[in-house]
Amino acid sequence: MSTTGRFTLPGEEHFVKQTEELCQRWGADAIRNSDGTSLDKELLGLGKKVYSAYFPARGYNGWIREHMDETPQVFLLTDRVLAQNGRVDIDLMSGFFDQQFTPNRDDDPHRYWEVIDRTTGAVLPDESWNLDPDLDRVHIEGAMPMHEYTVTFLARIIWDPVEMYNHLTNDWGDREHQIPLDIYHPATRDFAMKAFARWLKDNPSTDVVRFTTFFYQFTLLYDQHQQEKIVDWLGYACTVSPRALEDFSREYGYRPRAEDFVRDGSYNSSFLVPTRTQRDWMDFISRFVRANVATMVDMTHAAGKEAMMFLGDQWIGTEPYRPGFSDLKLDAVVGSVGDGTTLRMIADIPGVRYTEGRFLPYFFPDTFHEGNDPSIEGLDNWRKARRAILRSPISRMGYGGYPSLAIKFPKFVDTVAAIAEEFRDLHRHTGSRPAATQLTVAVLNSWGAMRSWMAYTVAHALPNQQTASYYGILEALSGMRVSVRFISFDDLLSQGVDPDIDVIICGGPEGTAFSGGTVWKNPELVRILRTWTENGGGLIGVGQPTALDWQGRFFQLADIFGVDQERYRTLSVDKHFSPTIQDHFIIHDLPENAPADFGHPILDTYPIDGHTSLLRADGGQVQLAVRDYGSGRGVYLSGLPYSAVNARLLERALFWAAHKEERYRKWSSDNPECEVAVFPQSETFCVINNSEMAQRTEIRLPGGTSRALDLGPSAMVWQPLPSEKRDHED
Amino acid sequence: MSTTGRFTLPGEEHFVKQTEELCQRWGADAIRNSDGTSLDKELLGLGKKVYSAYFPARGYNGWIREHMDETPQVFLLTDRVLAQNGRVDIDLMSGFFDQQFTPNRDDDPHRYWEVIDRTTGAVLPDESWNLDPDLDRVHIEGAMPMHEYTVTFLARIIWDPVEMYNHLTNDWGDREHQIPLDIYHPATRDFAMKAFARWLKDNPSTDVVRFTTFFYQFTLLYDQHQQEKIVDWLGYACTVSPRALEDFSREYGYRPRAEDFVRDGSYNSSFLVPTRTQRDWMDFISRFVRANVATMVDMTHAAGKEAMMFLGDQWIGTEPYRPGFSDLKLDAVVGSVGDGTTLRMIADIPGVRYTEGRFLPYFFPDTFHEGNDPSIEGLDNWRKARRAILRSPISRMGYGGYPSLAIKFPKFVDTVAAIAEEFRDLHRHTGSRPAATQLTVAVLNSWGAMRSWMAYTVAHALPNQQTASYYGILEALSGMRVSVRFISFDDLLSQGVDPDIDVIICGGPEGTAFSGGTVWKNPELVRILRTWTENGGGLIGVGQPTALDWQGRFFQLADIFGVDQERYRTLSVDKHFSPTIQDHFIIHDLPENAPADFGHPILDTYPIDGHTSLLRADGGQVQLAVRDYGSGRGVYLSGLPYSAVNARLLERALFWAAHKEERYRKWSSDNPECEVAVFPQSETFCVINNSEMAQRTEIRLPGGTSRALDLGPSAMVWQPLPSEKRDHED
Repeated sequence: MSTTGRFTLPGEEHFVKQTEELCQRWGADAIRNSDGTSLDKELLGLGKKVYSAYFPARGYNGWIREHMDETPQVFLLTDRVLAQNGRVDIDLMSGFFDQQFTPNRDDDPHRYWEVIDRTTGAVLPDESWNLDPDLDRVHIEGAMPMHEYTVTFLARIIWDPVEMYNHLTNDWGDREHQIPLDIYHPATRDFAMKAFARWLKDNPSTDVVRFTTFFYQFTLLYDQHQQEKIVDWLGYACTVSPRALEDFSREYGYRPRAEDFVRDGSYNSSFLVPTRTQRDWMDFISRFVRANVATMVDMTHAAGKEAMMFLGDQWIGTEPYRPGFSDLKLDAVVGSVGDGTTLRMIADIPGVRYTEGRFLPYFFPDTFHEGNDPSIEGLDNWRKARRAILRSPISRMGYGGYPSLAIKFPKFVDTVAAIAEEFRDLHRHTGSRPAATQLTVAVLNSWGAMRSWMAYTVAHALPNQQTASYYGILEALSGMRVSVRFISFDDLLSQGVDPDIDVIICGGPEGTAFSGGTVWKNPELVRILRTWTENGGGLIGVGQPTALDWQGRFFQLADIFGVDQERYRTLSVDKHFSPTIQDHFIIHDLPENAPADFGHPILDTYPIDGHTSLLRADGGQVQLAVRDYGSGRGVYLSGLPYSAVNARLLERALFWAAHKEERYRKWSSDNPECEVAVFPQSETFCVINNSEMAQRTEIRLPGGTSRALDLGPSAMVWQPLPSEKRDHED
Repeated sequence: MSTTGRFTLPGEEHFVKQTEELCQRWGADAIRNSDGTSLDKELLGLGKKVYSAYFPARGYNGWIREHMDETPQVFLLTDRVLAQNGRVDIDLMSGFFDQQFTPNRDDDPHRYWEVIDRTTGAVLPDESWNLDPDLDRVHIEGAMPMHEYTVTFLARIIWDPVEMYNHLTNDWGDREHQIPLDIYHPATRDFAMKAFARWLKDNPSTDVVRFTTFFYQFTLLYDQHQQEKIVDWLGYACTVSPRALEDFSREYGYRPRAEDFVRDGSYNSSFLVPTRTQRDWMDFISRFVRANVATMVDMTHAAGKEAMMFLGDQWIGTEPYRPGFSDLKLDAVVGSVGDGTTLRMIADIPGVRYTEGRFLPYFFPDTFHEGNDPSIEGLDNWRKARRAILRSPISRMGYGGYPSLAIKFPKFVDTVAAIAEEFRDLHRHTGSRPAATQLTVAVLNSWGAMRSWMAYTVAHALPNQQTASYYGILEALSGMRVSVRFISFDDLLSQGVDPDIDVIICGGPEGTAFSGGTVWKNPELVRILRTWTENGGGLIGVGQPTALDWQGRFFQLADIFGVDQERYRTLSVDKHFSPTIQDHFIIHDLPENAPADFGHPILDTYPIDGHTSLLRADGGQVQLAVRDYGSGRGVYLSGLPYSAVNARLLERALFWAAHKEERYRKWSSDNPECEVAVFPQSETFCVINNSEMAQRTEIRLPGGTSRALDLGPSAMVWQPLPSEKRDHED
């Protein structure tokens, strides 16, 4: 009854029998090791495909201990220190974890570091400061009393941050810390390539090299209390070295400043509008990374193995959605599935033969401990992912961590067995094809396609109070019956709006890469979007869309959204809120007992005039408003954290904005907890219950009929596609 | 039993007997007419001092109808009009009340008006637009499609806004509209002066000329629906004329643009950081206004009468807190008392012999109608004012409107009788001296002393959702046992912090005149405040104090407040909230059932490090935090709308910030609804109940003793000052 395939199981030492049992239960056709585990010979003999994690840039302490000037480096910004008088001492490491970093005292600090008066922004001249290398302290002379000073210094990363995280989380005690390598240095690069060649030779039974990952870790810096201080899943902070800076300088004609990397303490979070220097540096590093990835992939293929990249950890510089990714010839990408968004982030990657999702929970003691039921998280994770898989299927699934922990939780083992079976079932029903879509939606921001499904992200799949209102848009879209693409302001400026796009969503907090910042001073961008909307497009703004204090508007496309935000400049101007509309296409079907949640408030918004229709305006501000604009339409949403109801609201808003309400009914579900996916080629459709409760829903079929369905908790049901003969009625 | 004096009664035609009765009941010693009323001869014979309202700039339709080019003018900003193609038509008056304004078509529009592309900010050249004077429509040629355009045009004000408001509110039907005069025009000025001379001669029984007011109305513009469109009680929008612009240009060497007056539609609200041009224009107009006020005051005195100015309506250009106000030789200022803040705005005015408060409610049918009890508003108004009067007594009180309406409400008549008696009683007990203060507090912003008690004001005494969180600071201070002064950033830069100042409060929304905006890029300002605090000063920041995106901080003095605001630039940086402290001087005594209300939220604030003590941090942000800073202290408050509890919280925060907690106990009341005022010279103290409910409070006396008191609703009790002999115990 149970089937096999599309499933990767983590292996573990001294655990052969149980692993075999789990393979059976879960239908695994592949087995892999994880960080900190290796596979017994017996496991290799089970006839499963074997993945071996390969860490190109860590695990070679023998080499790197002899070359400690060839670890990756990072510019670190110290705490701000107040000058009481002309002399200031700044302890470099007082805010950082000394087991993770050590200052680079060797490469001339005066060439690379910066001491900045943060009260004036002035960079101090060389002669006014010096480093005491014994104390790792910078002495400043001639400081201005009552000004604050910082040092931005180069530090070596002496503990691989992922291994460090795993070590600290799993309490690995005095296990030796893995020191990372920076292959930018030719000797270390040569070492790394030779080590890989040797490894390939030494691991004949490996079928798939699971690169975990390549060379540069995303930004993950710990503080003096061994706690996370800075995390940016997309950050390039740890890609620096004097050698790379000098090479860059020769190529680009300028050398980035220390400040270009720490940028006032933001460390170039992807929420910031990217600078030219930042983009240049990303180009520079990613060309280097990709060249070396390509080399390793070629070596892998030459050894008769597949090359699989893990989308995470040292993934910086690979950016799968940048052009040219397929040139790397990777066979597969595997990534951690935190939700629908991260599922799509993996599944939509172009140019690889297959993709794999590593589901949660990870089999670590923080979840697998007495008193906890990991199957709850497992099912929740699956339900979030499943709606996205229907729209864009990953090829394979798997889990990570210690199977010896998982096996102690029989309910969890059963749950995963059911999930794996459902996953394979889904592929069988759909022929691995995506469900049909009815609209094309573009998400617009500074980053565009390069950050497909990565917008609004700080830590992987961990939206917080500030980001959830925006991240929810992606999560809603990830499982919706629409085609999604990510476009940039530059795309619009260079090629206009693609003709197949029905709706554009733009939004984010003011001044960010997602809202756009000063890009809105470009009248051409404004003209393009107004013209497109005027001619029938649908523009949805979320939060502080198109925000810039400019010419008396804050939302520069307030004329389309119908809403602007009071910036305490026009308090003298009377605002008029018309009564909210209770009956509108966008809010039909929404359950009265589960109102939409607009998330983190956007304060002081107001309708710009009497032509804006307010659908929700609580607390003296606007949460949801709509407006006609020529032949097109505008929608304003103050925020949209993910929930079933919010996803339904967004779906309706998309159809309304696109002026395609008439398409909405067919294949809709009247219960927001349930969604329908249609597969015309397979002549089937399925209905899923995204909740852990039983649900009843009415599915509107072609021809105007409906079908009531009762779905058990988390259920997924497949039905044959009814005849479309009577479809003229829709 | 009842006494007489310090009370001004409004008179009315055909109402002699009842007026006499009201005089008796309320102890009036003066009688006045209001807008729309005049006094019967018999009233003049009652032996009361007679105030006559005088309107220097309206009520002369005979003259102004012959000189319609000499009304006041205003630059009006049209709605934004989207260009569909190269031609755009903008109807000037589509957003304005045509009975209030008419475009000035006579003074060359191309010289004074501006047509602006609001998408680019470009001012259109003359040749690309022209006015159709028949349609009052501007035609633009060569517009950029999908750009928005506005016209800023000069309009004549053809209906005095105050008379218009009174007319529309009281439904005066077809009564002729009063057209205002602009005495900037020599002929009209000459006329106005002669009219006044004639009036002085014609009104021998007038003792006090109640100027209501002078020449320029604060900004009050109505829209096409006869509704208020723009209101700014401090606004200079209606002081414009081509003649004044040209004179200004000769004197200052530049001519302000139309945009300088409408400033993106903000009309230079006092919330905006003032520009150089704005300040120059205010100087220019107020010199002109004051010169002519001085002339009228001299004429008044020469006629043997007193000159009283109404602080409101056409008060623009007089600014009582600007230096030189006493040179006008006004005898008195009268103003509307909306609350404690506006009471202090009147009472603190320097350089006049006496001040008078006109209390609320106004005897108009909007309040005095069947089913309403005006005594509730009357008592509420009195209680708010009373706590301020104890700190800074106005000399006189009165009411306005139609006494024939008031007399129909016997409870109201009784209430006012009691209020008037209590007011006189207060003066008798205190010898008209202010209560003793224990701290000196300065409120810091761009405007400083010039806007004493006028900070955070849009409409007079009408805080709204956006402003209440800041206005509450003033309202709390208005009745507090502290000396209050208003200082500007320029004051600090030119003379540092006055040595007697214990605490400085700065706060407001980002980018405003109250928060300071770009002034915080001036390191000298930062240095002065840090040094002062370091040396023992107390700095309290409210809302978004010292806010400017600069060098990695948003609150530039975050190091003092201990709190900064996340601007979505440092989402990658972990924030740590320590548990809130439950026991702290600032929150002692606050009733558990009436928590402090921090008003309009300030989102995403966080403690900058572990040295900040959080006293309140709900919803993932900080409402109240404190921090030591050298010998001084910083306090952060996210907002403080006025309430008894909030006033108590602020009082405690002030004593704490000043490091003078030991002074707090003596003369404190443990019930926030009750306050104590001490009058050492009169050897008395009083306790007031600021609520409409009976209250019990314990008053802490010198020497460490306490006295429990029961106060009836709204009560005020006087007690002799106890001996201070045992005061060493405090």
